[in-house]
Parts: sequence; structure tokens; C-alpha cells
Amino acid sequence: MKDVVIRFIEKPKLSNGILVEGLPGVGNVGKLAAEHLVEELNMVKFAEIFSKHLPPQVTVNDEGLISLVKHDLHYLKGENGRKDLVILTGDFQGLTPEGQYELSSATIEILKEIGVNTVITLGGYGVIKLIEEPGVLGAVTDIELKPRLEEVGVTFKRGEPSSGIIGASGLLLGLGRLEDMKCICLMGETSGYFVDPRSARSVLTVLGKYLGFELDLSSLEEKAKQIDEITSKIKENLEESEAADSRDDLRYFG
Amino acid sequence: MKDVVIRFIEKPKLSNGILVEGLPGVGNVGKLAAEHLVEELNMVKFAEIFSKHLPPQVTVNDEGLISLVKHDLHYLKGENGRKDLVILTGDFQGLTPEGQYELSSATIEILKEIGVNTVITLGGYGVIKLIEEPGVLGAVTDIELKPRLEEVGVTFKRGEPSSGIIGASGLLLGLGRLEDMKCICLMGETSGYFVDPRSARSVLTVLGKYLGFELDLSSLEEKAKQIDEITSKIKENLEESEAADSRDDLRYFG
Amino acid sequence: MKDVVIRFIEKPKLSNGILVEGLPGVGNVGKLAAEHLVEELNMVKFAEIFSKHLPPQVTVNDEGLISLVKHDLHYLKGENGRKDLVILTGDFQGLTPEGQYELSSATIEILKEIGVNTVITLGGYGVIKLIEEPGVLGAVTDIELKPRLEEVGVTFKRGEPSSGIIGASGLLLGLGRLEDMKCICLMGETSGYFVDPRSARSVLTVLGKYLGFELDLSSLEEKAKQIDEITSKIKENLEESEAADSRDDLRYFG
Amino acid sequence: MKDVVIRFIEKPKLSNGILVEGLPGVGNVGKLAAEHLVEELNMVKFAEIFSKHLPPQVTVNDEGLISLVKHDLHYLKGENGRKDLVILTGDFQGLTPEGQYELSSATIEILKEIGVNTVITLGGYGVIKLIEEPGVLGAVTDIELKPRLEEVGVTFKRGEPSSGIIGASGLLLGLGRLEDMKCICLMGETSGYFVDPRSARSVLTVLGKYLGFELDLSSLEEKAKQIDEITSKIKENLEESEAADSRDDLRYFG
Repeated sequence: MKDVVIRFIEKPKLSNGILVEGLPGVGNVGKLAAEHLVEELNMVKFAEIFSKHLPPQVTVNDEGLISLVKHDLHYLKGENGRKDLVILTGDFQGLTPEGQYELSSATIEILKEIGVNTVITLGGYGVIKLIEEPGVLGAVTDIELKPRLEEVGVTFKRGEPSSGIIGASGLLLGLGRLEDMKCICLMGETSGYFVDPRSARSVLTVLGKYLGFELDLSSLEEKAKQIDEITSKIKENLEESEAADSRDDLRYFG
Repeated sequence: MKDVVIRFIEKPKLSNGILVEGLPGVGNVGKLAAEHLVEELNMVKFAEIFSKHLPPQVTVNDEGLISLVKHDLHYLKGENGRKDLVILTGDFQGLTPEGQYELSSATIEILKEIGVNTVITLGGYGVIKLIEEPGVLGAVTDIELKPRLEEVGVTFKRGEPSSGIIGASGLLLGLGRLEDMKCICLMGETSGYFVDPRSARSVLTVLGKYLGFELDLSSLEEKAKQIDEITSKIKENLEESEAADSRDDLRYFG
Repeated sequence: MKDVVIRFIEKPKLSNGILVEGLPGVGNVGKLAAEHLVEELNMVKFAEIFSKHLPPQVTVNDEGLISLVKHDLHYLKGENGRKDLVILTGDFQGLTPEGQYELSSATIEILKEIGVNTVITLGGYGVIKLIEEPGVLGAVTDIELKPRLEEVGVTFKRGEPSSGIIGASGLLLGLGRLEDMKCICLMGETSGYFVDPRSARSVLTVLGKYLGFELDLSSLEEKAKQIDEITSKIKENLEESEAADSRDDLRYFG
Repeated sequence: MKDVVIRFIEKPKLSNGILVEGLPGVGNVGKLAAEHLVEELNMVKFAEIFSKHLPPQVTVNDEGLISLVKHDLHYLKGENGRKDLVILTGDFQGLTPEGQYELSSATIEILKEIGVNTVITLGGYGVIKLIEEPGVLGAVTDIELKPRLEEVGVTFKRGEPSSGIIGASGLLLGLGRLEDMKCICLMGETSGYFVDPRSARSVLTVLGKYLGFELDLSSLEEKAKQIDEITSKIKENLEESEAADSRDDLRYFG
């Protein structure tokens, strides 16, 4: 079996296209953002990527229908001066370092074939504290990419992230650069404790400006509020039980 | 060495054949059921599958004769309007995700070659409690497969199993679907604590009706009773020792 | 890099040759026995096997000279009616299941090329207790091999080893059988706690009779006595410290 | 994707060149020493080595520019009777045993192609205690290499390192020797607790004499002093807190 099996539904011809990647990762920021884009922009699926480097697993949907785990590629032809757009989403990242390379390398080959020469990967940047208004950190392959990104709100912090960028969000940039693609990573600040739709919203706010789209991000704000509720309930329960504990303590000594 | 080495004893020519898979897994439900079918229907072995993705190990039988770990394929030509049948059994599943893909992919290739176009995988569905009359949960590749399955007693529960289907029982469906095969998974409810012949019996009851076989399942009921005895003895011992403990406790405070 | 790299020093032409394998394993029984044979019979090295499935490591000898970890093949032409003999020894077994298959498969290819059609693997059989006179357990590919083995002192126990034979000692038999070789495993009983030269002596006593060699096994007995001394000292120390502990306990309560 | 991808910036033609390897390892001794050589001798980068056996990761520099993790090769043409020199440095070692073999094997191929026939690997030799003046231990492929090394201060200790040499520093020697290269390992003594620039200095003192370079090692001594300060502060804090603890203990009992 080949390392990576690609099933094209159609093979679009793009011109100076831009890939936006959002696979599972820290706070699921990239995946949430990329899936929101696909839905919001009514994008067209043109390829499925299967691989022995993904888990040996099928998903089962609400109707009991199965589907082999995979990555999906959607596209949208640019209008009103916007660039052609491709989105990469998926169920899982490659399971091993070698698998990560095989999958990202196969993806770059597809991009070259259909006419994509810019790669933007989306991810979360774990800051290990809760954040109200998550900022968006950037990293690029070319210094000329920075001014426009800074204009739309991306921050560049000296030497951060200090541990580099790991997984598909890093590798697609590293391998894309070897093929002379322009590459950008946008990382939304996130606690890293929960799935973080608010961080995804920050990333999309910045990305929408960069790509020239007006995006409706209200559904992400909805999800963020639901998670706020859950976390505040957990917090309350914790405080109550701590209070109860201290009352117990008092009784014990009283 | 090739990833998968297939030794054909003969190469049957089948027509619209059905594969039934039963490899080791949760409660060993699939393996018990598939091996019962091979024995009960006097099926003919036609191929052995060896692989570097199986453990580097030989089994030793009662006469001290060794055998390299493998998967076995048996077949039975259909009579009285029944479909041609193939059964896949084996000592182990592939050891790694990649190995799982290689083995399932090689199996699908054999199926295509000999004329099988339907795949039914058997497995256990862990419910983490003891169950008297295990139900059988289903998942399929095509919605049209559901009515007949529901007729013979298969249940479809919205969004279950929520974690998908992992291993050969999932992968053969996912890869089979890519080759336009009709694919079904039958999962017997099982506690997951023990080897579970009663769950295997439930699965075979349903499968026998679906395939048009009258199967003698009494030997599985025998095995189930043996396991009942063992588990009830363990339970008694636990209760006795707990009772003894509480007597000790009384003495201690008395 | 190829999975397995073979360096022939010479390529002997043998006739119905016998391979004896002794790689590291339980009690190092097989390795001790095989290395003793190479030395005792003044055998000639004819090939070195390197592999990316062995550790990425060189050994350093007493002169500070390095050597890449490897497997060695030695041979001895048969005289006085004895069969041609090949011995496989080495620093390590393959690191992964896949590596084990690659190494054993490459070894079987060499054997076919040079004219070996019988495989005898040597190993330890862990019994988790100290044994004065270790027995030798056997397993074979063909029932006709058993009578001669039983004559020279090999035991066959119904269904043992129950977990099969794992690693090169199992795989060379399983893969050899696929090439119609006659295959035998000789397992010396061993506690499994220490390197066990006494078990290796038992294995060689049996093997010497089977192959028609009178072997001087006194050096293995020497090594066994050294290990006896070490283990009895450890035992004494343990008992002394336990005695001391109980005196302490008495003082404590006294 | 190929196991190892090599990007040549230029392909130098060398004559009896010498490779010096310094990848991450115990005390980072080899990496510190090799990187110091590259800088001090103003060497020219001629190739980058990428591989799916390195982590799936990009590094981010102070300007926010990314770079795929890799190995770098620099060279310097020999003058004044000195040999042509090549230095191998890098971010990581191969992640798996197999990856280590692939990377070292690919490196040896490059060396053969450009005219290198001597390999010197640098590493740390963990002695699990702090050392003021670290010695340099050697291991070689040919006994004739020893006298000159002993002249410049390398020590050969009978049977050390007893566990052999693991990773690229061992493998490049083992694989180089299979290609008839002269191979040397220089191991600086190091506690193994910290990054150890002083051990790197010892290694470079010896290596400089061997290669005929006068090296300015003051920057390594600077780094060593910084680490001395950090470790002595840690030590002080530890002693203070222990002293505080014992005062607490006195109060407690007082």
C-alpha cells in the first residue's frame, strides 16, 4: 500500500493559490478556524487524502454510516481581486514523525500540481493561562511577508515560539519553503486547557483581513460562550467543594 | 521481505462473494464467531497470510509442532441460493497502525481477485457492564444495507460507537468502500472484561439469518456457561473475603 | 540504505548443511551455547550481517578498536559422516518486530544460497525457579524429527511453551518452514534470573549427541560455578541483612 | 518522500578530506565543539540534509523566520599542509534506530562523493561527577591511528566506553569503516548533568593539535564560566535551604 492515497473528485486549476491548513492541535484552534472557513465560504471538496500514517480507524456518523479517517481538500476560486483559496482539514495528524513528513510532503505535491504557491498554517499557541482577547502570533519564511501581516494584527515576538512549530503546521511551511513557496504560520493564543473557539475567532479575524473576506464569526463566539459556561460551572463547583471542605475542617477542629 | 506474504493453497473463483472477518479484539467476539463459522460450515482453507507486521513468533501445538503466526482464509461455495462465503481468521491483528493498513489492504486485494464484493466485519462493542442478552450494533457503508439488517435484529444507535471502529474491523470497511464494496460491521455487546462467547452467539444469530444459514450455536452456549461458572466463583470468593474482612473489622473495633 | 547488508568473506558451498542459531535471549542460553560451538570447533567466519534494524551502535574492544554491531556466520565442513555446519551468533536481536522479520528472512536467503536445509535454534525456557540439572525442551516443524531428538534427551511437553517461541529462535523456524526446511528449537530450562551457562551446557550436551560431536563443556561448567558463587554470596548477604533486620526489630520492641 | 533529502549549495572537490561530526548528545559536547570550529574557521556551508527521520518541526529565529530542522555540512580547503576539512552539525539526531542508520549512511555517501576518507566524531563521555579538567577518551577503527592521538593527549582506556558508542558518533565510524575510511571518536569527559563547554574545549584542544590548527577557545571558556556561576548559585541555594531546614528542625524539636 502506498504511504499516501489521494482521491481526486476534481482537479482544479488555480493561479497563485493560497493553502490554509487547519488540522487538530493545541486547543484545536487551527481545525476550528479552517472548518469554519469551509462552511462559511461554501467551499467545494476536490480531494480526499488517505494514509497508513493515519489511525487504522473509521468514523461512524449519526446514520451509522462509516468513513475512513482522512484529510479533506476544499477550494474556492477567487473573486473581486481575491486569491484562489484551498483549505486542508482532517480528522487526525500523522501518527509518527515519518508519517507527518509523508503526509505534508504529499500535500505539497498536490499544491504544486494545482497551482498553489502560498501556504498559511493555523494553530494554537499555548500560554497556560486563560485569555480574554487572544492575540495572534506569526512566523514566516520571508521577511517581506511581515509588514502586511503586522498591518492586519499579527504579532511577531522575538524568538517565539521558542520550541519551534511542531506537526503539520510547521512541516508544511518547512517543506513548502524548499519548493520556494511563501509560508506563514498564524498561532492564536490559547490556554491549551480546552477546545478554544475564541482563539479560532482571533485567528480568523486576522486571516479574513489578510485574505480580503468579511467573515461571520458569530457561531464561533456562540461556541466560545458555551465553553465559558462549562468552565465557569466547573470553577463554581470547585470553589463550593473547597468552601465545604474548609467548613468540614472547621467542624473537625471546632 | 515483502510487507505481506500470501500463500495460496488454491485460488477459488467466487461470484459476488461475501467476506466475514473475525480477528482478535474486544471480548474476542469476532474471532470466536468467525472460528465457529469455519468449523460449523466445514469450510476449506485456501490461503495463509504472513506478515512482518504480525508478531515475530511461532505458536507450538500439543504435538510440539510449530507454526508461524498468520491469518487464514477459508471459503464455501454458496448453495440453495446462498452467496459464496469467505472467512478471515487469525492469531493477531497487525502490530502497528501502518501494519494494520498493509494487512487490510492486502486482504482487500485478494478479495477483489477472487470475486468478493461484500465485507462483513465482526467485533465486540464494550459496554463496561455484564449483559444477559447481548444486542448487536451495526454500522454500514450504504444506507440501503440497513433495512435488511434491522429485519434480522441489528440495531443502529445514533452516533455509536462514538469513537468509531478501530483495527481490522474498521479498516476492512474503510478500504473496502474505496473499492466500491458493500461493507457492514456487526458488533456484539460485551462487558469487555472476559472472552465473551455469548456475545459471539448473538452476533452469529443475526449473521446466520442474514446469510441464510441455520447454525448450531450450542457449543458457544457451552463455553459461555463455563465462563459464567468461573466468573460466579470469582464473585463468591470476592464476597466471602469481603465478609471476612468486615468480620475482622468488627473484631478490631469490638 | 538496504534493510540488511551482508558482507561475505567467502561463500562456502555446503551440502544439506545445518544452521545452529544462538542470539541473545532468556538467560543468554542460545548465545552462550552457539559461541561455545564456534570456539570449540574452530569454525571459520564467512559472513557479517549489518542492519538498520540493529541498534545504531558500535562496540569498543579492549584495544579501543570499534566494530559496528552485527550478526556473524561461521561454518565447518562435515567430516566423519557429520553434516556441514553453520553457526549464527550476534550482539543483538532485531529491535522491532519488522526488524526481526527482515533479519531472519535475509538469513534464510543466505542459507538457501549456500546449501543449508536444516535449522536448529537454541534458546532458554524460563521456569522462574533455580534448577540444578536443566532439561531441554524441544519443538519441531515435522513430527518425524522427534524420535531422534527424544533419543538424545530432548523432552516434548504437551502444549509448551504455551506462549510460543518469540524472536529469532521462533522466526527462523517459521520462515524456514515456508522454504521447506527441517526446523528444530532446543530450549534449555533456566530460571531466567541470570546468564545461565549451565543451561547452555545442557543444550550443548543434547546438541552434541544429535550432531555427532564430542564437545568439551568444562569452560561452561567453570562459568556456571562462578555465577553460583556470586548468587550464593548475594543470598548470604540477603539472609544476613534479614537476620540483622529482625535483631533490630527485637531491639525496637524489647 | 525519500528517507533523506540533500540540498547541495555547492559540491566541493576535496582530496583525502576529514569529516568532523558534532551532533547533539551527552553534555552537547560534540555539538558545541563542532559549531565552534565552523565559526572560528569561517567555514563555508555547502549542503543541507533534511529527513523524515528528524522531528516534524521547524525552528523559529529571532526575526520570526522559520527553518526546517536539518543537518548542515560546511567545508574548508586545507592550507599550509593541513587536510581539507568538513564539519557536520545539526539540530537533532535521527529519531529512531532506523533513522540513525539512514542519516549516517546518506552522510557517508556524500563523503565518498566529495573526497573525504577520514571520519572524526566528537561526543561526551558521561562520568557522573563534576570534573575540573576533562580528559579526552578515544576509540578508533585502526590500531595505527592510536600513537598520533596519544601524542596530542587522547587517552585509551581498556574496554571503555563499556557500553560502546551510541548514535551518530558511533554509527558514522561503523559505517565509515565498511567503506574503508579511517575513523576516530573523541569523547570529552563530562558530568552529563549540564551542557558542558569545558569538555568541548578539552576536545577541541586535542583536535586542534591533531589537525594542525591554533584555535581560540576563549568563548568556550566564557560559556563554561557562565555555567559554573549558575551551578554554584544552585548549589548555594540548596545549601541555604538545607541549613534553613535544619534550623526549622531544631525549632520543631526545641
